[in-house]
Amino acid sequence: MSWSAQQYTLFERERTRPVHDLVAAIPNGAVQRAVDLGCGPGNSTEVLLQRFPLAHISGTDNAEDMLEAARRRLPAVTFERSDIATWNPASRYDVILANTSLQWLPDHATLYPHLVSKLTEGGTLAVQTPDNLEEPAHRLARDVAAHGPWQAKIGAVQHPQRHDARFYFTLLRPLCRQVDLWRTTYFHVLQGGPSAIVAWFKSTALRPFLGPLSEDEQNAFLRAYTEAIAQAYPAEADGTVLLPFPRLFLVATR
Amino acid sequence: MSWSAQQYTLFERERTRPVHDLVAAIPNGAVQRAVDLGCGPGNSTEVLLQRFPLAHISGTDNAEDMLEAARRRLPAVTFERSDIATWNPASRYDVILANTSLQWLPDHATLYPHLVSKLTEGGTLAVQTPDNLEEPAHRLARDVAAHGPWQAKIGAVQHPQRHDARFYFTLLRPLCRQVDLWRTTYFHVLQGGPSAIVAWFKSTALRPFLGPLSEDEQNAFLRAYTEAIAQAYPAEADGTVLLPFPRLFLVATR
Repeated sequence: MSWSAQQYTLFERERTRPVHDLVAAIPNGAVQRAVDLGCGPGNSTEVLLQRFPLAHISGTDNAEDMLEAARRRLPAVTFERSDIATWNPASRYDVILANTSLQWLPDHATLYPHLVSKLTEGGTLAVQTPDNLEEPAHRLARDVAAHGPWQAKIGAVQHPQRHDARFYFTLLRPLCRQVDLWRTTYFHVLQGGPSAIVAWFKSTALRPFLGPLSEDEQNAFLRAYTEAIAQAYPAEADGTVLLPFPRLFLVATR
Repeated sequence: MSWSAQQYTLFERERTRPVHDLVAAIPNGAVQRAVDLGCGPGNSTEVLLQRFPLAHISGTDNAEDMLEAARRRLPAVTFERSDIATWNPASRYDVILANTSLQWLPDHATLYPHLVSKLTEGGTLAVQTPDNLEEPAHRLARDVAAHGPWQAKIGAVQHPQRHDARFYFTLLRPLCRQVDLWRTTYFHVLQGGPSAIVAWFKSTALRPFLGPLSEDEQNAFLRAYTEAIAQAYPAEADGTVLLPFPRLFLVATR
């Protein structure tokens, strides 16, 4: 398993919890075909399979190391390399799951209705996206990037535009019989103080910052970032630290 | 059923959803005795009973009309009038549930450890409290109260101090093997535009504002409030309106 799939798997229990909450909110009904768009190492696909054990389930990702990890985990499921941006299947699905994947894509005003158009009547689109760009962990990464010798090398890290719940409601309400939205901040309890928080974001938020840097620069960046994190996320007396992580959930039934 | 129990029951599906989420997060284990503190009309007690059908379950409330509604709903459960502030049972419970009740009580730094002391080893305290004092629905009630002829009659509506997730984590971590916290904003889809939002809060947030007023004053207050609500919660093209409602959840296991 590559570095990023390994690092991602470090906090698998915490990272899988939102998938359980998301999949539990899919309405009951006969599900024959379900797909997990941006399946990562297959932890979300596994939750989908547990909920719909009789369905034909497939998964897609654009990272080969994630697909390999997913195939090892769930040998009976078909995992295929595919970009969500150009995903255009010939037949429709009863459930389309997208767990922490759509936030990487632009133009949700086009993308989400396109995904709904790939649902059967009564089918459900279930999406979970991190909503944490304004959390200290992200703000501090931008701060450290902007105030170090690596500033020019990193440049401005751009994210596709984020939207609030009402945007998705207004967008999908005319296309769906039911649009269920909620936003949850999980307070993850991590052992090991600030370095646990750094480890958490190494495989996700920090990748575009660390990617352009040499190994020495990466280490210096991580030292500066860890110091800033220790101030923003104070440890408890026993060394544990609380990581608040807000996420937006959408369950839209056609 | 009295006016307040009736009004409360209007949005029962929406109001019961957080209880399902809360009760689902209680760890599995043998539960023999469970209590619902501040049971209201028994909707939360019913969810507790569904989860632990073999347990002996009781409920308490300080409002007689709520207790009557609860007894009609669940004849097999014991409901007793009791104030949470002075609740001091002789024997311990495996589950103590408090759904939208503890926010009425002061001094959580004393109250929550007291409740934990009434748990068996391995028992769970499960609490859900609204976290919406800064939402427009509350802010606008204070605004309307402060800028009308009723200003002196209503006076300052006081709420016990609210705390964030970290406060409860730091308070209970030394007393519990596991402290699970999350904060969810539900985006409730209401039919009927702004008056649906006013109806929602009539039985809860608006009670201390309307209580001191004459019927004419109440009607004038509600007219002014409804106008302000219509601005803050714009209706969709089809007349539905989204009501964001943030709530804090705590599941602490001794």
